[in-house]
Amino acid sequence: MNFNLTALDPQSSARTGVLTTDHGIIETPAFMPVGTAGAVKALHIKELREDVRAQIVLGNTYHLYLRPGTDTIEKAGGLHKFNGWNKPILTDSGGYQIYSLADIRKFTEDGVVFQSHIDGSRHFFTPEKAIDIQRSLGADIIMAFDECTPYPCDHQYATKSMNRTHRWLNRCMEYFHKSEPLYGYSQSLFPIVQGSVYPDLRTISAEYIASTGADGNAIGGLSVGEPAEIMYKITESVCKILPADKPRYLMGVGTPANLLECIALGIDMFDCVIPTRNGRNGMLFTRNGIMNIKNIKWKDDFSAIEAEGDVFTDIEYTKAYLRHLYVSKEILSAMIATIHNLGFYMWLMKEARKRIVEGNFAGWKSVMVKRLMQRL
Amino acid sequence: MNFNLTALDPQSSARTGVLTTDHGIIETPAFMPVGTAGAVKALHIKELREDVRAQIVLGNTYHLYLRPGTDTIEKAGGLHKFNGWNKPILTDSGGYQIYSLADIRKFTEDGVVFQSHIDGSRHFFTPEKAIDIQRSLGADIIMAFDECTPYPCDHQYATKSMNRTHRWLNRCMEYFHKSEPLYGYSQSLFPIVQGSVYPDLRTISAEYIASTGADGNAIGGLSVGEPAEIMYKITESVCKILPADKPRYLMGVGTPANLLECIALGIDMFDCVIPTRNGRNGMLFTRNGIMNIKNIKWKDDFSAIEAEGDVFTDIEYTKAYLRHLYVSKEILSAMIATIHNLGFYMWLMKEARKRIVEGNFAGWKSVMVKRLMQRL
Repeated sequence: MNFNLTALDPQSSARTGVLTTDHGIIETPAFMPVGTAGAVKALHIKELREDVRAQIVLGNTYHLYLRPGTDTIEKAGGLHKFNGWNKPILTDSGGYQIYSLADIRKFTEDGVVFQSHIDGSRHFFTPEKAIDIQRSLGADIIMAFDECTPYPCDHQYATKSMNRTHRWLNRCMEYFHKSEPLYGYSQSLFPIVQGSVYPDLRTISAEYIASTGADGNAIGGLSVGEPAEIMYKITESVCKILPADKPRYLMGVGTPANLLECIALGIDMFDCVIPTRNGRNGMLFTRNGIMNIKNIKWKDDFSAIEAEGDVFTDIEYTKAYLRHLYVSKEILSAMIATIHNLGFYMWLMKEARKRIVEGNFAGWKSVMVKRLMQRL
Repeated sequence: MNFNLTALDPQSSARTGVLTTDHGIIETPAFMPVGTAGAVKALHIKELREDVRAQIVLGNTYHLYLRPGTDTIEKAGGLHKFNGWNKPILTDSGGYQIYSLADIRKFTEDGVVFQSHIDGSRHFFTPEKAIDIQRSLGADIIMAFDECTPYPCDHQYATKSMNRTHRWLNRCMEYFHKSEPLYGYSQSLFPIVQGSVYPDLRTISAEYIASTGADGNAIGGLSVGEPAEIMYKITESVCKILPADKPRYLMGVGTPANLLECIALGIDMFDCVIPTRNGRNGMLFTRNGIMNIKNIKWKDDFSAIEAEGDVFTDIEYTKAYLRHLYVSKEILSAMIATIHNLGFYMWLMKEARKRIVEGNFAGWKSVMVKRLMQRL
């Protein structure tokens, strides 16, 4: 893996770059659609490739480990072969899903015991096991096993958890370097900065992560309920510490405005379920603001979903028709909203890259964050 | 509307034809995917056009009347404009859905009072109202308002119901001829043969329907629980009475084998929820038989869903992946199975037409009905 910075914004810390993996390139800043169980919900792989035009997709280790299981994915020849997506994939470590989904969980120094949210079966994840599973899945970028602290979280627990996350990171890296990729292409391991909302801890963690010399670095434990201002402040301080010549990945963020603000702070990669999940719930992001498609105001609005949109759904369907589908609980509603929102997120990243290259990102961003979050 | 027979099978009553409407042609025998609420479930309009390549789609008057309502559809300029499907559409009259879905219903000479299955609101359909609604929807082919008798149904009730259906037909035709299409293109009204499983009643009804000189004729009240042999027998006798130079539409039928058998009896048009509904439930129809995709036997089968298939899903996805999606309750599972099954139904109709033209339909059909219904 290789990361080349291609432009720096003169008025912010925004930058553009190209991340090269064995499955192709990722232009940054990049948004990664979430394909939890090896599929982006309500979207064909073909649509991800040809309509949304994603350059990288995220898969969830926790879900894929439970179903279909690493055995099936290994037999398929890895996740790329299993689902037919032959561009870059990033997998998380499972830590966050254990925290947010598993029924019972117990963190110890060695790892985490948890019960599957699917069938209650009991499992034990360690840093080494998280690497093993991610070797089986075969993503281009894999993540260190960490604990995502909740918000709020007291300073004492945040410290203890962060230190354990760092020790887990050592074990992950050691095990990663001892093990080999299974499918003939290389994998990169990204460590994760934790430390909750405490600037002192975030500084310690960022410095520790920066010292590992990894191919890329992630910031975790944000967007878990804290105010956006705190998230921006932490992101800003951490970005200043993480190496400038490596991609910075802000995990689980966010709204269109969050993305633009964090690009300005020096973030290169994002993933979030907002465009897909909120889309399935009838929320559409557009160049002019947010539409709640359930709203009665769209009932007889026969204009295109977004006349200037990039994807076929934007011009082939009307607001009134989409509203009807949503109200009628038609699957097609989720399908349309998913393509639309992901298409919009991809457009937003493309525009951001263009503005950074042109050197006018900061001014454009200020206008856009207001416009994009207004309710239509 | 205009129907030209293009070939007759020498060894059965199968025939090919071309039905021409103001929205384009339909090659018969034809299968009409069911687009209940103005959308085929889990399918983009674009996929219906480019992947499935349907030539006509069915819409349900009952559903569209309740939601979004004729007011919205009229403002859109008709159903074609509302959903963006610019090829032929057929709407049913609502009678069957009232019978199968509505909460409370009461049939009187004048019409049917029923309560919406959505919100319990009370509605009254008459033959005239069914025509009015179908004028608003603007389908190319609209159906007379009838009562679909249940199975079993005693001879006395079947007689009474059939006679009322005939009187309702008179009212439909009279009202239809007095009224005008709303959107500048023509609509044809098809009457429906009823009479339950009683040969004497079916003969009376078929003769009555044949006498109306309609552009096409339908057979209703079959595939409601009676044995397939009875359905074939009734279909055969009715086809012999209905005019040979007009399309014959067998409503709500059926499995791939049902379609081939009924084509041999002289049926030209079909609609059924089996390919779409069963697909969403994990049943896939293929050239070699039926796959239950939930079955453990597909867990590690990384071969294409159907290597010889016509649609992109058949070769871009594997059985193991589709099984995983189904088991994981991913929406993509329904999307893949829907395109696959409809693609298969379209292929089956195309093959049937080809065999009829070649004059070897009957022999091919005998082989296929066995093969298509075996469990893989």
